[in-house]
Amino acid sequence: MAIDIQGKSALQLAALLQAGALDAVALAEATLAAIETCDDRAIVIRPTPDRALKEAHAASRRLRDGRARSLLDGVPIGWKDLFDLEGEVTTVGSRVLAADPPAARDAAVVARLKEAGMVSVGRLNMTEFAFSGIGLNPHYGTPRNPHGRDTPRIPGGSSSASGVAVAKGLLPVAMGTDTGGSVRIPAAYNGVVGYKATRGRYPMDGVFPLATSLDSLGPLCRTVEDAVLVDAAMLGLPGPVIARGGLDDLRLVVPANVVLDDLKPAVATAFEAALGRLAARGARIERLNLPAFDALAELTRARGALVTAEAYAQHIERLTGPAAEEIDQRVVARARLGANISLPDYRAIIEARGRLIAETDALVGRETLVAFPTIAHVAPPIAALEEDVELFFKVNARTLRNTALGNFLDWCGVSIPCGTGEAGMPVGFLLSGLAGEDERLLAAALAAEATIRGD
Amino acid sequence: MAIDIQGKSALQLAALLQAGALDAVALAEATLAAIETCDDRAIVIRPTPDRALKEAHAASRRLRDGRARSLLDGVPIGWKDLFDLEGEVTTVGSRVLAADPPAARDAAVVARLKEAGMVSVGRLNMTEFAFSGIGLNPHYGTPRNPHGRDTPRIPGGSSSASGVAVAKGLLPVAMGTDTGGSVRIPAAYNGVVGYKATRGRYPMDGVFPLATSLDSLGPLCRTVEDAVLVDAAMLGLPGPVIARGGLDDLRLVVPANVVLDDLKPAVATAFEAALGRLAARGARIERLNLPAFDALAELTRARGALVTAEAYAQHIERLTGPAAEEIDQRVVARARLGANISLPDYRAIIEARGRLIAETDALVGRETLVAFPTIAHVAPPIAALEEDVELFFKVNARTLRNTALGNFLDWCGVSIPCGTGEAGMPVGFLLSGLAGEDERLLAAALAAEATIRGD
Repeated sequence: MAIDIQGKSALQLAALLQAGALDAVALAEATLAAIETCDDRAIVIRPTPDRALKEAHAASRRLRDGRARSLLDGVPIGWKDLFDLEGEVTTVGSRVLAADPPAARDAAVVARLKEAGMVSVGRLNMTEFAFSGIGLNPHYGTPRNPHGRDTPRIPGGSSSASGVAVAKGLLPVAMGTDTGGSVRIPAAYNGVVGYKATRGRYPMDGVFPLATSLDSLGPLCRTVEDAVLVDAAMLGLPGPVIARGGLDDLRLVVPANVVLDDLKPAVATAFEAALGRLAARGARIERLNLPAFDALAELTRARGALVTAEAYAQHIERLTGPAAEEIDQRVVARARLGANISLPDYRAIIEARGRLIAETDALVGRETLVAFPTIAHVAPPIAALEEDVELFFKVNARTLRNTALGNFLDWCGVSIPCGTGEAGMPVGFLLSGLAGEDERLLAAALAAEATIRGD
Repeated sequence: MAIDIQGKSALQLAALLQAGALDAVALAEATLAAIETCDDRAIVIRPTPDRALKEAHAASRRLRDGRARSLLDGVPIGWKDLFDLEGEVTTVGSRVLAADPPAARDAAVVARLKEAGMVSVGRLNMTEFAFSGIGLNPHYGTPRNPHGRDTPRIPGGSSSASGVAVAKGLLPVAMGTDTGGSVRIPAAYNGVVGYKATRGRYPMDGVFPLATSLDSLGPLCRTVEDAVLVDAAMLGLPGPVIARGGLDDLRLVVPANVVLDDLKPAVATAFEAALGRLAARGARIERLNLPAFDALAELTRARGALVTAEAYAQHIERLTGPAAEEIDQRVVARARLGANISLPDYRAIIEARGRLIAETDALVGRETLVAFPTIAHVAPPIAALEEDVELFFKVNARTLRNTALGNFLDWCGVSIPCGTGEAGMPVGFLLSGLAGEDERLLAAALAAEATIRGD
């Protein structure tokens, strides 16, 4: 085909599709071909060509007839391997679910994006059961971060292939879930945009759970604009209703504690430079101590982690039965820590969480966003993490440190690339909003994106 | 004073106060005197005369000056002993909290009713830690059901004295909380109205918790109209916005399973007669099996009860420390069952709850209310229950059976007297609405009250 579709944003593809300069079937075929010939076999672990072509033909007819369902009609999307797609087995990055029956129906958000005309091209690799921020997968392979030139580097997790597929230009949109950072981390490591909506913004039917008090979801894509388009479609709206904000309206809190600790120097430089550019264009930036961050660390030491408690309960039969041998032992080891968390511990965590959210909401204020680096470092090489399980756990904890604060406090957040850090690897700038402030967050992110990127 | 205030509704007292026919200070003094001379010392366990007189003087001035804060300005109220009143110790019906520091501020709902001008006259007895539907209290005495003529009968719990105080005409309004039926049960046993709002309708700050996934609250009072007035004030509204519905708009589901099992004959007769009167005036009544009721019983057998799990976690330090000896051993025994509920059990209960709520919501429909007897029997004599702990647990489980379904399914509900059952004791007719349907419920209850009562 004449038009190179690789690496185009959803909005760019939408413009071509709506103008008739690109046919939805040709786009689907080119996308499937790119998946087929991709040098990294660990990204799209199961393409869905039949579904994709059927949906693309329908989209093509609608677009030709001038009755497109939305701006996203005909635009391809890939799904992390924990979203139900009708007729496909949901394997959640694991081998132990491979013999499960196929899903009887699409997950609710899959159905909504299908309604909007999006074309589902396949299932994307992930950390087994979504339980780590690194992205290794011993069963289906570890997708490689496309920015790692000489050394294979991690994709981040758990929506590992969602980040890689967008960064490589294979797909304009890949859906992820985020329980401790699993959308924002692969977005940051791979240099793309990742939007984690407030938990509960979309229905979770047909989404395999990890820890339901924390589970949220959202797209990885090339631009904030694309995230806004997909958000509207997932809400069932005919089009986006979020308008670009202004930088001089933007009020940011930069937490003085925890999230800036032990930043790699080049990460710190990239983040502070982005802050400086925002300030120069009118954003008001306040450095503020958020006691909840330290309180959470103390709570986790005393009682255990909420995610571990819920993931253990979710998976107890697999973790204590014969299936445990077939599961990534790093996942098993981490989830089994949940056995040490008692019901009173858990209830104390839930109770403390409510208190810490209320305190932090009052301190930050609903009109203010919070800014810090998505991760304190850049994506490290794969090899050492595969070999050294101690190192794996250490780097995993460091990787999740900043983003998991947002899950605990029930925030929404969007990670936007802000230049490069060590080894020329991408750095993510995380903008977060209090629970339910998604529209404010996205409006500000639309306004701030170019400045944060340093374009 | 010339006007007999005992046994008047809040609305009746309000009319007298607003008209200047009754002075708020005189009303407070008469109420405090009635409490002082009451033959049952186990009802108002700590009057608050200083606060009451101060609030009554302020109300009296406002009413005289034509600037009443609401229709409830100057109307007395009593509080179950688990609401914080500034400067008072919140003892929760127990001895083990008696040395705690006094509350630094009013509970949020106390503050709201104070804002509306209500006069707080004292703290009302309850089941220790709110953990039973019977209402015995070995520390402060068991308030006697005023309808038990020859034999002292139980008040029901846990808001035991809230039911008795209103039934005896001591107070027009008494606030209760409801985790498994603790507002609706004493309302039914004592022949008054009890409204349990949807959990979360009012702020819970300053309310001592039992099981936060279930805890809700609401007033016991003489009429549905009074409940509507108090509800508006607790929401911070200047006056009620709920209009009386019509009986020909009323659609009721009467569940065919569980809630009508083993009804005492006279309870069944009273309930069916009320249903017949409603049908005769246009209500549409459908008998329907609600599978969630049986599923909940099965879930409780397999995993344990949600209330027990959370109450155990709430009280673990008291239950496993030396304080346990000072606590009602029936409360201790029941709460300690929570030690057998694991975190995975608890998470399975929470997960099943979400599923059962969704199923039942779909089956019932938001516009339909559910009707069944509040309790399958009338208030039994106190003596046998005090003597026989096995009988106590059996009757407690039977007492809570119907109402606890509503807490698990997150419903709102109002218990309305519908005549008498065995031994001439009151029977309660429970109208319930799905979560958040409080306005629909109260509008229907306003319309149906006289018909349900058989006036």
